[in-house]
Amino acid sequence: MDDYFAVIMAGGGGTRLWPLSRQDRPKQTLALFGDRSLFQMAVERVHPLIPMERLRIATIRAQVGLLREQVPALPADGFLIEPAPRGTASVVGLAAVTLAHEDAQAVMAVLTADHHIANETLLRSLLAAAYQPAKDGHLVTLGIEPTQASTGYGYLELGEQVGEVGGHPFHKVESFREKPDQQTAERYLAAGNYLWNSGMFVWRVDRILQEFDRHMPELAAGLARITEALGTSSAVQVVEQVWETLRSQTIDFGVMENADDVVVLPTKDLGWWDVGSWNRLYDVLPLDEQGNLVLAQELIALDTSGTLIVQEPGQSRLVATLGVNDLVIVDTGVVLLVTTRDRAEQVRALVDQLRQDPTKHRYL
Amino acid sequence: MDDYFAVIMAGGGGTRLWPLSRQDRPKQTLALFGDRSLFQMAVERVHPLIPMERLRIATIRAQVGLLREQVPALPADGFLIEPAPRGTASVVGLAAVTLAHEDAQAVMAVLTADHHIANETLLRSLLAAAYQPAKDGHLVTLGIEPTQASTGYGYLELGEQVGEVGGHPFHKVESFREKPDQQTAERYLAAGNYLWNSGMFVWRVDRILQEFDRHMPELAAGLARITEALGTSSAVQVVEQVWETLRSQTIDFGVMENADDVVVLPTKDLGWWDVGSWNRLYDVLPLDEQGNLVLAQELIALDTSGTLIVQEPGQSRLVATLGVNDLVIVDTGVVLLVTTRDRAEQVRALVDQLRQDPTKHRYL
Repeated sequence: MDDYFAVIMAGGGGTRLWPLSRQDRPKQTLALFGDRSLFQMAVERVHPLIPMERLRIATIRAQVGLLREQVPALPADGFLIEPAPRGTASVVGLAAVTLAHEDAQAVMAVLTADHHIANETLLRSLLAAAYQPAKDGHLVTLGIEPTQASTGYGYLELGEQVGEVGGHPFHKVESFREKPDQQTAERYLAAGNYLWNSGMFVWRVDRILQEFDRHMPELAAGLARITEALGTSSAVQVVEQVWETLRSQTIDFGVMENADDVVVLPTKDLGWWDVGSWNRLYDVLPLDEQGNLVLAQELIALDTSGTLIVQEPGQSRLVATLGVNDLVIVDTGVVLLVTTRDRAEQVRALVDQLRQDPTKHRYL
Repeated sequence: MDDYFAVIMAGGGGTRLWPLSRQDRPKQTLALFGDRSLFQMAVERVHPLIPMERLRIATIRAQVGLLREQVPALPADGFLIEPAPRGTASVVGLAAVTLAHEDAQAVMAVLTADHHIANETLLRSLLAAAYQPAKDGHLVTLGIEPTQASTGYGYLELGEQVGEVGGHPFHKVESFREKPDQQTAERYLAAGNYLWNSGMFVWRVDRILQEFDRHMPELAAGLARITEALGTSSAVQVVEQVWETLRSQTIDFGVMENADDVVVLPTKDLGWWDVGSWNRLYDVLPLDEQGNLVLAQELIALDTSGTLIVQEPGQSRLVATLGVNDLVIVDTGVVLLVTTRDRAEQVRALVDQLRQDPTKHRYL
């Protein structure tokens, strides 16, 4: 498996965790689960299956410094720079042509930096199992057996089993489904043959490039221009030029929904959590006896329940609460947010409003 | 009137405005109404009626530095040091014997540093009017015509008019009433012959000392010991010794409720507000269109109403709120408080809990 590469997508901003997540400290760099950041965990959990030299970190230029600081062992040429966010299809395409330049039939795992995975051993076992079907030409995705009728994830419809590797069966995928409404999510859960789309994929680089040719010809044309420039002094400039022409599109909508030969490795017990919002954090992290989620150094809480209290590391202030319920309180060096758990999914509205005022961009 | 002195009581802590009010920045030093602190306003509003050299500031030693910083013109010997808080009766007693040492028949006005007074001209007119009845031996108090059935103040029952000075009638006081319950407060308001007890008094020093002799013999004995020591090198030490023996008692309970010959100058339009609690501030300061009281440098508030948002000067953080109502949010350098307007009167409970833990005294 020495042609097995991993691409960790680490360029997101994570505005739904604002203001803890900000431009200069995006979500994947936050240590929400102990000492290590989501990014550090994302890098470390693929070892020793895929060694550091076959790891590629896809991100925007502004984040490279912080990411290298968090994982000093990462080589400078391990970064794939997106000139600007243009969706996962564009990132995957850039990664695919870059790896193809090294090895036209390399296998690449596409991994995320903003999910928590409790069982890292199981993840490596799944990634190891995915290698051979990918090498054989399948587009492999990891699907998570749902534990609740979540409307926050896309779903995969499970088809018949078509093989087994390393104790893991793999199945055809009948269809990809967008994030459903509540009623549909409940139907999926009851039906039992739907999986959460984890956003983790494994495929041969030439196979995914074929699919871009078929389903995203504009992106494929841009990638062809980049391929010509790779290894020359104009490579960076060409990527930037191509990027300006790209629409933002996800790999799920752009390719997976229409691709041939998609298979899924179903899994449970991976301890896989999207940590995309304050409410998700509240749902997955342990609460105190009053149902509060406390990520604060120093707190005094009287008659306080159902409340999420988050303090940015380095803040030394006391958070004091009295007689409040079901709030979200986020105390950072530059912004203090107070909202309710009901409304916390809408912090994006605050971010959007701040974006419209250049004098307030320092709070983003 | 060159024997007319003013004693400003400026030793309080103001825990009900915690955490904006703290040990090292007590309430009277806060600039809640523009640029000047409550203490600065309290000092400046008696000029030119009573000049700086006849002003005495009663406070605890720990606060002298900050108060002098705020009013550099105050002479060092203008401070009357209470070794520890022992209630207003003890402070008034100390001030009375100290002034009596200079002029046995001096008139002293007892003034507060933690009330806001909008109409400073009217205050000086009232203080000027109070001088002669005080010189004549009356115990003069200023009474405020109530504008609402407040349970937060003590009340005076107005008796017959017994004179007039400078256009201000003065009346006998029939009785002093403690802070009433809501029903009683409404009865007082409807009756029309009850005034708020402002806590501002004017009397001759020998007259108030007489009353201590009659109604507070223990305090009077202590004051006699202090009188003997005044002007000697042991004065400070004797004050400290006496202070250890004193019970804490207010001038209202200890003297005024039982004293002979109390008269009141009724007033309205003084713009007199006790700023004793977050709810009082909310009641008296101008609100925005959503009914929020905003004392913050930088705020973004969506769907936020009835909320008090207070930021300590010097804090440069953005306060962001979304979908919250009727909260109290206080953002300071060392503590962040989030409570409701309903519960804000009970911040004292948080303070008490912090007092029990020496490792947390830095938050007080």
